[in-house]
This record gives sequence, C-alpha cells and structure tokens, in this order.
Amino acid sequence: MTESTASPGVDMDTLVSLAKRRGFVFPSSEIYGGFASTWDYGPLGVELKRNVKDAWWKSMVRDRRDIVGLDAAILMAPKVWETSGHLTNFHDPLVDCRECKSRFRADHLEGETCPNCGARGSMTEARQFNLMFKTFVGPVEEDAATAYLRPETAQGIFVNFENVLTTTRRRLPFGIAQQGKSFRNEITPGNFIFRTREFEQMEMEFFVQPETSDEWYRRWIDIREQWYIDLGIHPEHLRRDEHPAEKLSHYSAGTTDIQYRFPWGWDELEGIANRTDFDLTVHSEASGRKLSYFDSETNEHVVPHVVEPAAGVDRSVLAFLVDAYHVEPDEKGDERVILKLHPRLAPVKVAVLPLSRKEPVANLAGEVWDLLRPHWATQYDDTQSIGRRYRRQDEVGTPLCVTVDFESLEDNAATIRDRDTQEQIRVAIPELPAAIREKLGF
Amino acid sequence: MTESTASPGVDMDTLVSLAKRRGFVFPSSEIYGGFASTWDYGPLGVELKRNVKDAWWKSMVRDRRDIVGLDAAILMAPKVWETSGHLTNFHDPLVDCRECKSRFRADHLEGETCPNCGARGSMTEARQFNLMFKTFVGPVEEDAATAYLRPETAQGIFVNFENVLTTTRRRLPFGIAQQGKSFRNEITPGNFIFRTREFEQMEMEFFVQPETSDEWYRRWIDIREQWYIDLGIHPEHLRRDEHPAEKLSHYSAGTTDIQYRFPWGWDELEGIANRTDFDLTVHSEASGRKLSYFDSETNEHVVPHVVEPAAGVDRSVLAFLVDAYHVEPDEKGDERVILKLHPRLAPVKVAVLPLSRKEPVANLAGEVWDLLRPHWATQYDDTQSIGRRYRRQDEVGTPLCVTVDFESLEDNAATIRDRDTQEQIRVAIPELPAAIREKLGF
Repeated sequence: MTESTASPGVDMDTLVSLAKRRGFVFPSSEIYGGFASTWDYGPLGVELKRNVKDAWWKSMVRDRRDIVGLDAAILMAPKVWETSGHLTNFHDPLVDCRECKSRFRADHLEGETCPNCGARGSMTEARQFNLMFKTFVGPVEEDAATAYLRPETAQGIFVNFENVLTTTRRRLPFGIAQQGKSFRNEITPGNFIFRTREFEQMEMEFFVQPETSDEWYRRWIDIREQWYIDLGIHPEHLRRDEHPAEKLSHYSAGTTDIQYRFPWGWDELEGIANRTDFDLTVHSEASGRKLSYFDSETNEHVVPHVVEPAAGVDRSVLAFLVDAYHVEPDEKGDERVILKLHPRLAPVKVAVLPLSRKEPVANLAGEVWDLLRPHWATQYDDTQSIGRRYRRQDEVGTPLCVTVDFESLEDNAATIRDRDTQEQIRVAIPELPAAIREKLGF
Repeated sequence: MTESTASPGVDMDTLVSLAKRRGFVFPSSEIYGGFASTWDYGPLGVELKRNVKDAWWKSMVRDRRDIVGLDAAILMAPKVWETSGHLTNFHDPLVDCRECKSRFRADHLEGETCPNCGARGSMTEARQFNLMFKTFVGPVEEDAATAYLRPETAQGIFVNFENVLTTTRRRLPFGIAQQGKSFRNEITPGNFIFRTREFEQMEMEFFVQPETSDEWYRRWIDIREQWYIDLGIHPEHLRRDEHPAEKLSHYSAGTTDIQYRFPWGWDELEGIANRTDFDLTVHSEASGRKLSYFDSETNEHVVPHVVEPAAGVDRSVLAFLVDAYHVEPDEKGDERVILKLHPRLAPVKVAVLPLSRKEPVANLAGEVWDLLRPHWATQYDDTQSIGRRYRRQDEVGTPLCVTVDFESLEDNAATIRDRDTQEQIRVAIPELPAAIREKLGF
C-alpha cells in the first residue's frame, strides 16, 4: 500500500525531536544527563527495530534455501581478535587540539584548522587507538582474563564454521546469518543513532567456491540494495560506492558500500565485502583446526571464499525513518506529518479509535481492540478529537485506523481509514481481520 | 498438539551432547578451547531462542492492553548503578581453597571440606567482589570514563519511566517490558547455559497503585507460571519458592521464584518481586526528577509501586529442552528420541522429505518446499532412509514432516506425519499450508 515517492527531506533536529516526543528513541540515562552517545529505543522504536530485524531474518534465513542462523556470544576468546587482526589493526588515528582540547579522528579532519575553536596548526601528532572495549573476566581484577567486547559479529560466524558445517551438512554455497550487539570505542560518535559506541549488526557470511566469489559478491550487492527498496526506501536515495583497490581492507578483494542520502549527506548503510579466504585461513592456522569444505564431486578439500553483506540495524532504522518522513497539506490546508513506513515496518499496524469515551461505544471499541490485538501490534486512543487522533497515528506511521462510532452500535461495522490515501471504507466488525490483512498485504 | 507428559528425565551430559551434535548450542570460541563459560547458539538454537523470546513478547506486550516495550542500551551512566545500589551491594562472597587454589562462592559451600580437593578448613576468609563487568568509554584509557556492562535490564526501564509515561500517556496500572543481554562476573558459572557470565533477560516492570501491589504481585506469579505450562512445561516440574522476609533484597516487599526441576535439582527459572517504590524513589532523589504519576481522580502525585517478573532467556530455553526430551520405543523396539517441544517453540515447524533424490520427485519436493518456506521455518532433508530422517526430525522437535513420494507425481498429494502420534495423513499439495496451519494450531 505504500507508494514510495522521493521525500522532500527532513532535518535531523526535526527527526530527533519527533523520535523523542513520540517514543521512538530516547537519550540513554537521560535523567542523569545522558551517557556517551548511547540511545534507548522507546515503545514505538523497539517495535520498529524488531520489525527491521525480523524482515532481515525472514529475507536472509527463512525465505532462502541456502542460509542458516547463528547467535554467538559478545564475549569471545581474546585469541579470536589476535588472529583476526583486530588487536593489531583495528585502530583509529586520534588527534587533540592543543588550544581547545577537543579530540578528533585525524582521518575525518579536512585542512589545518580546528573545527571547534578555529585554531590553525594546533593539532597534536596522530596517535593510534584501538577501538575495542576492554573488560576483565573473573572476579579478581588483578588475575582476571582481559577480554574484549566484540567489535563485529562476523568473527563469531568464522570460528563456528566447522560446527555449523558439521551439524547442518551443507553444501557450498551456503551462508550463516547473525544479528546482535557490537561495540566500538569511537572517538567521535554522532548523528543520532548513526554512529554510536554500542550498536546492533545484521551480518551474513556466505561461503562459496573460490572461483565464484566475484559473481556472488555482485549478486549480493543487488539483493541487499533491493531489500531496502522493497521495504520502501526510494531508489534515488540509495547509491553504491565501490572502494578503489588501494583503499581495500587487508582481507578484502572487493568492497561496495550501499549508501543512503542522510540529511547530512551520503553515508554508509551497509557494506558488502568479498573477504576471500582470509578469515578461515588465519583461524585455521592459529587454531590448528581444518576449516575447509570437502567437495565430494572433486574429492578435494577447499577453503571457501566468503562474501559478507554487513548491515547496521540502527542506521537502517534511521534511514527508514528519514525516508518515511513526509509533510503534506491536509484538507484544511494545515500541515499533515506522515511517516510513510512500509506496513511491515510500522510499529503499530492498526489503531482503534472510539468516537466516544463512554459506554456503549467505548465498550464496543474495546471488543474490536480485543479482536485485532492477537493479530497485529495495535494501539487504542480515545483522547481528543478524531482529527487529532488521525494526525497522531499518521505521525508515527500507523497504516490503518479503525474508527468505532455511534452507527457501529446499529450496523455492527466500523470504518477503516488508510494513512496514505485517507480513504475510508466501512467494514462489518467480524470481517475486520480479513479486510485489514488484505490492506496490509500480509 | 503437544500432549505434555511428565518426562522421565534427561541427564545433562546427554542434553549437552545432543545440543552440540544437532546445532542447538556450541561452546563459544571452541576452536580456541572455549572461553569463560560462554556459549553460542547454533542454527537450531537461535530459532528456538527467538521463538521463546517472541512468545514472551507476544504474551507480555502484544496481547495485553496494559504493557509497552522498551530496548535500553547495555552501557548506561555509572550514576545509575550508584543509585540503584549495585556499586555498593551487588557482591558475592569469594573464598579460595589454600590447598588446591580453587575458587568458590562462600554462600554456595556446605560444610568445611573443599568440594574440589577434599581438604578440611582450607578456605580463606570470604572477600566481597562486585559482579559488574567494568570497561572504559573513550579511546584513551587513562582519562576515559569507567562504565559497567549492565547486570540487569530493569534499571533501563526505571530511568526511562518518565519518558515512557509522557510519550504513551498511560494510566496505572501499566507495564514496561524489555529483552536484552546482561552481564555478571560470576565466580562459578556452570550447568551449561543455566548460569553464564553473559546472559539474556526478559524483564517487565509493572507500575501499580501502592495499595494494589501485593494483589498484583500474586497475580503475576500466577500469570508467569501459566506461561511456562501453556508452552508445554509439565506442571509437576514447576514449583514456587517464596523468600522468607529475612532473605528479601533491600528493595523487596516480597519475592517468589518459579523453580524448575532441572537435572541437578530444583533451581530458579524466574523471579517475581514486589520492588515497592524503591527504584523510582532513589532515582528521583538522585536525579532531581519527579518520577511519579499524577492521578487525575484524586488530584495527587503518586510514586507507583513496582511488580517485576524477571525471567532468564537462556535458562528458559534449557528448561524447555529438558522438559521436551523423551525416549520412547519405536515400532521396531528401538529407542526413539523425541523433543516434544511446543509447536510455537520448535525451531523447525515442517521438514520436507523427498523419497528420491532424483527428478522428478526431487523437483516436486523442491516446489513443496518453496510453497511452505514463506510461512514457517522449514528444513529439507534428502539423505539416508526415510526412517532415519524421521528420527532426525523427532530428535530436534520438528512437529510435522511432509513426505513427497512417487505417488505424489500421480495424485499431486503428499503425506503429513505427526511427530508425537506418528500418524500420517495424505493431503493435496495445494492444501498443505492450510492443513499444516491447522495441525500446528497457529
């Protein structure tokens, strides 16, 4: 039902304000002044985020023949990060302004002038800082084991490659998909939920015959871009950025970012990388385990190559919010703010709105709510005028409103109102679940 | 369809072995010798865990009129833990055996003999150790802010009380539900996924008028116990343990554990606590924010009391596995291992089994798989005898198998086989989704 049109754009202040006012995203620990650029998802945000993750899981695992899931722990053996190269290579260059003491990532600075105080040539030499969060496992700090909060979920997949292969008896090509929190001690987090120190990833490692890796790399770029479009992102707000050979990570034979036109400019939404056999090879050498695949047709052991689409949950949520934001004139010429979220992503699918707070209308509306609640995420709103209530639901992206009025007492029917077209149809109450299912499209 | 009968019991070795062999749970970082009693969920385990979490979310948030969701960050302002009492009080007493250097929780020891080496009177005096994992936020360790990995999700709800109340305009009683990882630096983790340093919680804080808190406390004990029973746990394997007044936490006016009969004995599955107004009061005092509710009927501000059902995801998963484990004789008198998981929890709902790996049977079976995959989590298995394949599906709890045979090419029908009764019915292929939905019950 969502007709996607190029959004006129929304500035971040407006979006952050809406997110807080309506319960999508709150600053974390806000009553204590916030903390370290972390954010909490409120009642609507948690449903939106769940829907994004479920849509990814459905398209990547459930609907496909060739991918299975995994959920590895955040705390892993430090040897994993030594082997993957994160202990040695996962650094950002840090500089301080000698004048104002502000701290920056050297690779994000342009020119010699401090972006904060304007001092010229005030920056210290760049120092390399590892982005992994350190902690101590075991109760006594002095003899506890140092451990790291994982900076990516991918390594949890590589070290489980053998276990998954053995238990699922898969043939190449096959993939292992995972969702979960990762942590990076960013020097300069920012842009709301776009760059945060604690964030959630959706990563999939696709293991293929070496000679097919470039073909699969291209194919996954297409599949992943289409996923955003299918869920309502306007194609003109997406573009691809293929990294030139000299900028590739040490493990990569090719990386393409899918970028979204955020309010501050084009920025990364998801990266698709051809990781070659780097990860399986280094873990095989370090662990002494044979992380390979036995090809029964050629009777040979093969170290598969890996194609990885790695998406950020939080920045996907942000992109879906930005792209859904529309302002249109209403029938009176006032502004109507609508989040044209795809029905699958909308945090509330149906709102039940009684025209009166008193019996018997309220009672019947309660019954309608009970009828719909087992099927979808719903809301019940009985405060203020019906026009105000439609606006409130439009602003949080609710695709359908069901209005129970005085006539409902006579005809046992209610009105379904469509968010995008504002069309209204009258439906017998027992028929509501079927009619709503048809309009939502699932 | 699951007829719950008292399980004859399963020992932990058998269960851990099955969990690893079939891809439910692997030791984390296993190729490097494992790490710190952490565990990874494999392809079947991740689906089982998702199903447990989804069932909880549906029953606690979606199906109810009075509860909304939240997803707060793991990293919070340290002031939260200072105020909640965790920095001061969240300790376990630690003792070391002077002979064998083993480490124990003093409150878990019985008698004066070391459980490891048998030495008498060898224990050191108990030292108090805080169970929170420490880390450093900001790239330079010496001037970074010390932070803690949350030891419970509950505090994320309390500090967001005002934000949720304002954005949802709820009236008492109402609840805020949350799922997510927590971390405790346990001295002695153990019993597989029962007690781990990294674990997942499902917690709900239910805010009520003070005078109704005991009534709600009793009611939530009933609701939560019933949830496990509805999902297949045998009632005789559950019991309640109400803490005596002298053992209550400093914030609690009443705590009852729901215990499950694990293979090592009765142990806690979930705790329901009447937390009084402790949390909102201390956070209100420490933050200077008025964390109260305005009662428009009495025109008074009330600090709500809180009833908290706090469940562990991982130990719920373990209880569902243990309770589902059954061994029955098959038609030949051999042992048939069956996980009688509730269909909602089963990681695979339907397995498609072709009687031949060759065309045209394999082709038709592939079409059947494509027909079913959009609706449920499925598996396709074409290796070894059909009897072996049924056993494999029984062992992982798949409620239904669909067998495509040579006759299917003639009658365009397939056989649905029921895990528990082993009954088989013939169904026209286009009718399979409807027949499966009816048999699964959802």
